[in-house]
Amino acid sequence: MGLVVQKFGGTSVGDTNRIKNVALKVKKEIDAGNQVVVVVSAMAGVTNQLVQYCQEISENYSLEEYDVVVSTGEQVTIGLLAMALQALGVPAQSWTGWQIPFVTDNSASKARINQIEVEGLQACLKAGKVPVVAGFQGINAQGRITTLGRGGSDTSAVALAAVLKADRCDIYTDVDGVYTTDPRFVKNARKLDRVTYEEMLEMASLGAKVLQTRSVELAMKYQVNLRVVSSFENNPVGTTICDERDIVEKEIISGITCCRDEAKITLVGVQDKPGVSAAVFNAMAQANICIDMIVQSDSPDGSHTDMTFTLPEADLSRALSILDKDKEHIGYRAIISDSDCAKISLIGVGMRTHTGIAQRMFKALSEKGINVQTISTSEIKISVLIAAEYAELAVRALHNAFHLEKKEN
Amino acid sequence: MGLVVQKFGGTSVGDTNRIKNVALKVKKEIDAGNQVVVVVSAMAGVTNQLVQYCQEISENYSLEEYDVVVSTGEQVTIGLLAMALQALGVPAQSWTGWQIPFVTDNSASKARINQIEVEGLQACLKAGKVPVVAGFQGINAQGRITTLGRGGSDTSAVALAAVLKADRCDIYTDVDGVYTTDPRFVKNARKLDRVTYEEMLEMASLGAKVLQTRSVELAMKYQVNLRVVSSFENNPVGTTICDERDIVEKEIISGITCCRDEAKITLVGVQDKPGVSAAVFNAMAQANICIDMIVQSDSPDGSHTDMTFTLPEADLSRALSILDKDKEHIGYRAIISDSDCAKISLIGVGMRTHTGIAQRMFKALSEKGINVQTISTSEIKISVLIAAEYAELAVRALHNAFHLEKKEN
Repeated sequence: MGLVVQKFGGTSVGDTNRIKNVALKVKKEIDAGNQVVVVVSAMAGVTNQLVQYCQEISENYSLEEYDVVVSTGEQVTIGLLAMALQALGVPAQSWTGWQIPFVTDNSASKARINQIEVEGLQACLKAGKVPVVAGFQGINAQGRITTLGRGGSDTSAVALAAVLKADRCDIYTDVDGVYTTDPRFVKNARKLDRVTYEEMLEMASLGAKVLQTRSVELAMKYQVNLRVVSSFENNPVGTTICDERDIVEKEIISGITCCRDEAKITLVGVQDKPGVSAAVFNAMAQANICIDMIVQSDSPDGSHTDMTFTLPEADLSRALSILDKDKEHIGYRAIISDSDCAKISLIGVGMRTHTGIAQRMFKALSEKGINVQTISTSEIKISVLIAAEYAELAVRALHNAFHLEKKEN
Repeated sequence: MGLVVQKFGGTSVGDTNRIKNVALKVKKEIDAGNQVVVVVSAMAGVTNQLVQYCQEISENYSLEEYDVVVSTGEQVTIGLLAMALQALGVPAQSWTGWQIPFVTDNSASKARINQIEVEGLQACLKAGKVPVVAGFQGINAQGRITTLGRGGSDTSAVALAAVLKADRCDIYTDVDGVYTTDPRFVKNARKLDRVTYEEMLEMASLGAKVLQTRSVELAMKYQVNLRVVSSFENNPVGTTICDERDIVEKEIISGITCCRDEAKITLVGVQDKPGVSAAVFNAMAQANICIDMIVQSDSPDGSHTDMTFTLPEADLSRALSILDKDKEHIGYRAIISDSDCAKISLIGVGMRTHTGIAQRMFKALSEKGINVQTISTSEIKISVLIAAEYAELAVRALHNAFHLEKKEN
């Protein structure tokens, strides 16, 4: 007998019929002899409605009260799913974040988990009941409701799997697994059977919206056996996210991601001397703006140069006004910004041991006439910034060049 | 400086604009120098939607999980109202039932309040913040969410006013007070300035849906200064519900109520001997069916008689099947039922000191050709059962006969 944590996202519990369908999936796992803890999101659309109410009340609404409002979405689902399980003869009990309790820090609307008490849940399991847990929510030391940020139910599920030492954590969603790239752009995109934590982490943070990044971090840290599967298939295989050691046939490149929410800023004519980039990036850090790629061009006259960096598109106008205010302090001649760009990334643990990947990448792009604006790399990733209009073309070209449609590319 | 509990019902908080309007009403009370505790219901329609979800999941849904689901409605409102107050510069904090805590017994979906901890709320007030409390909900000794039954937010507000020793408890609703009778039937129905707890209790339990009956019981027990006022007026006067001693000019008759959810059962040919009525009413009590009026006709032959009683229409079919099963044990010849009847009641503390009320009542009804089927009386009430089709006519006739359109009738 194993212990399985099953997590069902918003579309999987989108209406009462789908909730009944989820109950059947839980029962199937029980009938197979396993113990099950279920984690659920709010019914699709509910959280957006609640957020809209908050925005209608005030532009600068309190994040503490926002958490009180939006956490109700998951509470509705746990009650309904517990009922649906009982209707199938499966004893079940709902658990809110504060009932467990799921203790977090005080960062309203993006809290981090400090501790999860497991006594109550374990007693519930021991009594033969399925605990149905509200994802996304917790309680802080002051007894106030907190939430973990959008997509936080993934993190709730993985954290529970870690503390309960579950044998498996299955994330049920509306896609049937993790793909080599977005199947909407590339028809022969291939579902991956296995992908490493590190690769998934890059994919998640680079915009593959299958799993919340923090959930993958947690899974890696606690070696949770994580699986992404479809709610709408009968015997889903899905994609297993696991340790590199557990993958026998490693692929060089696992996936290609495309992120369009990027913007680029170029400071023209900054002084080529120490301290200038520190001034720029300090200002950004203090405003909580995440800088990604940074490129400083060679200084032809030895005294002035151009500095380019990328940042989330949503932060662009804020960044520009900060840079404008600090113009004298930083010292630059002009500022150029561009929000019409996309970041394309190749991801794969195989890069560690294979050379020539970057070269093949640039060749494939140049053959299609795509200009690479900036480049950044990590041990298992190469990212390039290109004009947004070439995004799909670039992804398709790279998918073909690396033969990702075939296993063992 | 006084302490005021303000309660706002579902229509008063029906959308985000109305919630902002409620915030203005709270601010007005603060600006007048008072401390305020606010109690709110779910936004109009939300509770019905949640109940429908439960019904879609299962016909026999767990009432414990029902409480988890429906209590979310009030939680949304407290968060939004706290935000709206903050937007007006009024410090505010939301409080769920479990955060206070509002401790109840274990009767899921119709829990009764055992205890309310006031330390947290008092500290909140002391810190200059308006506590915005979720009505309708509590927590039982096992840490599970409970609800107080439909309309329970009235009871939450009155109970809070009692334990906080508030100077006033204002129930804001979509009507501007308590009327001598339903203004939809009688054009010249008059709004009452004051009505006694006992009269209001009769009116509430007889179908005037302004206040939940239990809230009036509580107000009477703890002598809470209760007021019903309109959310949609600027300087509402409303109706004050208070002790008889606090009403100088007492009216003989305060109101006329009409309840259509009544049914009548007649057992024909029951034996006229002790123990028969006990058998009937025991069976009803065991099935939790509330019997109201009881009439046993004279026994012409000294051995057999007819027994008539009324009960809520919703319980009729259940009652009939119980009586059918017990036919031999009870011993009756035939059973006649009628769900097409209405109960009309005259209510007034003045009845205690005035005679001839019943006579005037029957005269007014007979002048309109309305046949009185059964009668029941209490110290401050006379009720008659009539054919449902005469209900409006009867109410109008009585309103005129007792000149309820005029003060000091």
